[in-house]
Amino acid sequence: MNQSIRRFLLPALLLPLAGGASAPAAPERADDDAEKAVRKVLSDQQDAWNKGDLEGFMAGYWSSDDLSFFSGPDATRGWKATLERYRKRYQGDGKEMGKLTFSEIDVTVLGPDAVLVRGHWKVKMSKDEPSGLFTLVFKRFTDGWRIIHDHTSR
Amino acid sequence: MNQSIRRFLLPALLLPLAGGASAPAAPERADDDAEKAVRKVLSDQQDAWNKGDLEGFMAGYWSSDDLSFFSGPDATRGWKATLERYRKRYQGDGKEMGKLTFSEIDVTVLGPDAVLVRGHWKVKMSKDEPSGLFTLVFKRFTDGWRIIHDHTSR
Repeated sequence: MNQSIRRFLLPALLLPLAGGASAPAAPERADDDAEKAVRKVLSDQQDAWNKGDLEGFMAGYWSSDDLSFFSGPDATRGWKATLERYRKRYQGDGKEMGKLTFSEIDVTVLGPDAVLVRGHWKVKMSKDEPSGLFTLVFKRFTDGWRIIHDHTSR
Repeated sequence: MNQSIRRFLLPALLLPLAGGASAPAAPERADDDAEKAVRKVLSDQQDAWNKGDLEGFMAGYWSSDDLSFFSGPDATRGWKATLERYRKRYQGDGKEMGKLTFSEIDVTVLGPDAVLVRGHWKVKMSKDEPSGLFTLVFKRFTDGWRIIHDHTSR
């Protein structure tokens, strides 16, 4: 292939495949950026929770009726229903949000627009300390990375 | 761009991006193929389980030390450890494999090489019928689609 044609064509063709990034990036670089962005969402969620800001915490989730949240035997569908579930469990009468900690976070990039996160969660309350595992699937949207599916268990 | 150059270059450049398929396929077609392949793995797993063939069931999982299996509060790492876990739970003294049924299977293609599956599982035994939810993440390998992470709860 003619060298100058190649130099012109490759970036032009790869640009739409780079998932909306402003310049074509090497796959490793793109993976690093995805991991960093997703870890930021998680730390923002943890910070919001620990300020009692449930809506801020919920900003990490895809604001859609197609969001899914599995917890133990219960499947919840939709952003609003998921928020309501959290409200009942952590902001109801006699409930408390406690201090949330994520740990052993393992980020696996599945493709240019999808990331799998596995980890442990713990909520330290005045009398109790529930903890367990979580699986999150993130998708990249035009305004950033959001959780499209959460499976948690204890 | 010159039409004949484009006709030559596009397939040549897209081929390595199509994930090893023998010809470049439209994204919708590729998604349909991925969904069909993943559903086949699940139905093969169900059939193997119901013949008491645990190794056959395990063929759906990535044969790697990096396979992860989350169940309730327990995180298991590796194909062998996951097989051992199933053996203890379903083939130990006084245990039975029962009849496994997957239902409400929802397949979401996350990219050319990754698929998310959500669904319900049920094992009908002589005296008991445990059931719950599962989240599976599949990756495409050169020899087919395999589960790289399983999160199950009840």
